[in-house]
Amino acid sequence: MTDTDQDRKQRARDCFESLRDRLCATFEQIELEHTGQLRDRAAGKFVRTLTTRHDEDGGEAGGGVMSVMKGRVFEKVGVNVSTVDGKLSADFAKTVPGAEQDPRFWATSISVIAHMQNPHVPAVHMNTRYMVTTESWFGGGADLTPMFPNEEDASNFHAAMQRACDPHGPETYAKYKKWCDEYFYLPHRKEPRGAGGVFFDRLDSGDWEKDFALVRDVGLAFADVYPQIVRRRMGQPWTDADRHHQLVRRGRYVEFNLMWDRGTLFGLKTGHNIDAILVSMPPEVRWP
Amino acid sequence: MTDTDQDRKQRARDCFESLRDRLCATFEQIELEHTGQLRDRAAGKFVRTLTTRHDEDGGEAGGGVMSVMKGRVFEKVGVNVSTVDGKLSADFAKTVPGAEQDPRFWATSISVIAHMQNPHVPAVHMNTRYMVTTESWFGGGADLTPMFPNEEDASNFHAAMQRACDPHGPETYAKYKKWCDEYFYLPHRKEPRGAGGVFFDRLDSGDWEKDFALVRDVGLAFADVYPQIVRRRMGQPWTDADRHHQLVRRGRYVEFNLMWDRGTLFGLKTGHNIDAILVSMPPEVRWP
Repeated sequence: MTDTDQDRKQRARDCFESLRDRLCATFEQIELEHTGQLRDRAAGKFVRTLTTRHDEDGGEAGGGVMSVMKGRVFEKVGVNVSTVDGKLSADFAKTVPGAEQDPRFWATSISVIAHMQNPHVPAVHMNTRYMVTTESWFGGGADLTPMFPNEEDASNFHAAMQRACDPHGPETYAKYKKWCDEYFYLPHRKEPRGAGGVFFDRLDSGDWEKDFALVRDVGLAFADVYPQIVRRRMGQPWTDADRHHQLVRRGRYVEFNLMWDRGTLFGLKTGHNIDAILVSMPPEVRWP
Repeated sequence: MTDTDQDRKQRARDCFESLRDRLCATFEQIELEHTGQLRDRAAGKFVRTLTTRHDEDGGEAGGGVMSVMKGRVFEKVGVNVSTVDGKLSADFAKTVPGAEQDPRFWATSISVIAHMQNPHVPAVHMNTRYMVTTESWFGGGADLTPMFPNEEDASNFHAAMQRACDPHGPETYAKYKKWCDEYFYLPHRKEPRGAGGVFFDRLDSGDWEKDFALVRDVGLAFADVYPQIVRRRMGQPWTDADRHHQLVRRGRYVEFNLMWDRGTLFGLKTGHNIDAILVSMPPEVRWP
């Protein structure tokens, strides 16, 4: 490994850890500000837990930090950062670029999933990652899942993602938005998971700095726009019927994660900590 | 198709519909008898809905009747009987016996899933089916999912299944019990789904009457033993903590159904009604 390779891994990791710290601080601040329904409850605080990944032979091979908050605005939010390395299983290596001949890999990522108390506040997901085999690439995205259609929230979210993408070429945003719509889709119900956002994978343009900047900008755009949406909606009153609707919509989220999400399957297949993978699951769900 | 073929299809279908009527009547009777927690609520009654299956070309190709009850003992119980026919998709046909050359199929089945109000009453699943391509076979099984380990319930259930299997040869029960333990297993958590029961598939011994008798006997054993278990436990008091534990255990049930259950995948791949397939989902679930 060259000094450049080492430096890039470190910078990607630092970027994700720094974004994690910023998101956790903002989300805790929002908990403190809250004056709407459930204000009598204590404001939430993040709890951090170390997680460990195990290789096929049972040995430890990196791990991460799972930050989870259960609050009065954020019913359950997980912000996971993990940095792992090891060997992909033979079958799996065939499907991963640059791993066919040499199954060793290294990966760092941040993953955020928020399920909210107030049914009028959209749920959200954001994930960015840097993956290294004999090749290296970035992947990631962010998407919004409103429980009730809301044009203002959706268009704010899309505009933020577009601002992150626009410096990277005129087609970038449209391409990643379409990719997101195609990825976050439930074929068995023929319906989208939510309002979309952006999604990209195997990003390796040949200009590492430019690719890294895109990933960083998507994270910063997310850290900017999602708190705006939460603050706008968290005071809005809701009823038991709204809550019921939210819990049913969360069922679709579970169906997507367990049936179709490649990230979940990747985590399970590479032996990552089950609690860290399934922190994405909503805290309460109904299939009435 | 010979008269014998036609007669067998009709008898299998009649058997499943008759079992459905018996189960629904018994479960409604249990609702009426209830004197434990939630007795102030109205006793549940089954509601029947016709479901339709659609072929790849969009045409209707059989259907079924979904019987669902939401009660004070049975929080949500679905008893589906369906009789469908059509053509398997080319990819799927390769994996189904007798369908490689001719993708036409006919199938009749009964499927029962009960999620209970009282955390001390086990959830349960029972399914039997008769499948016809250029070959024909039976499949099915029944398994118990206690939320708290309970030796008495589990051993009653296992004993009933053994009584159904024993007339069919000395190894039958042991073989189907083991098959059940292997099938209802969550690899990602390395844990069994519940206390097990019996499971079998592609049963075609060459003696159709004998095979049909086994399937019928498994259904009758289930209709005998599960109501006994429900009646024994439904009056047992429970706490909020017991309920929480139940909702968390139900999460495992969801994970199994969406990630690993071939029955769910078969239904989705053959275009069956999504509500009928997912009636198996628990009404309320937590991933805290």
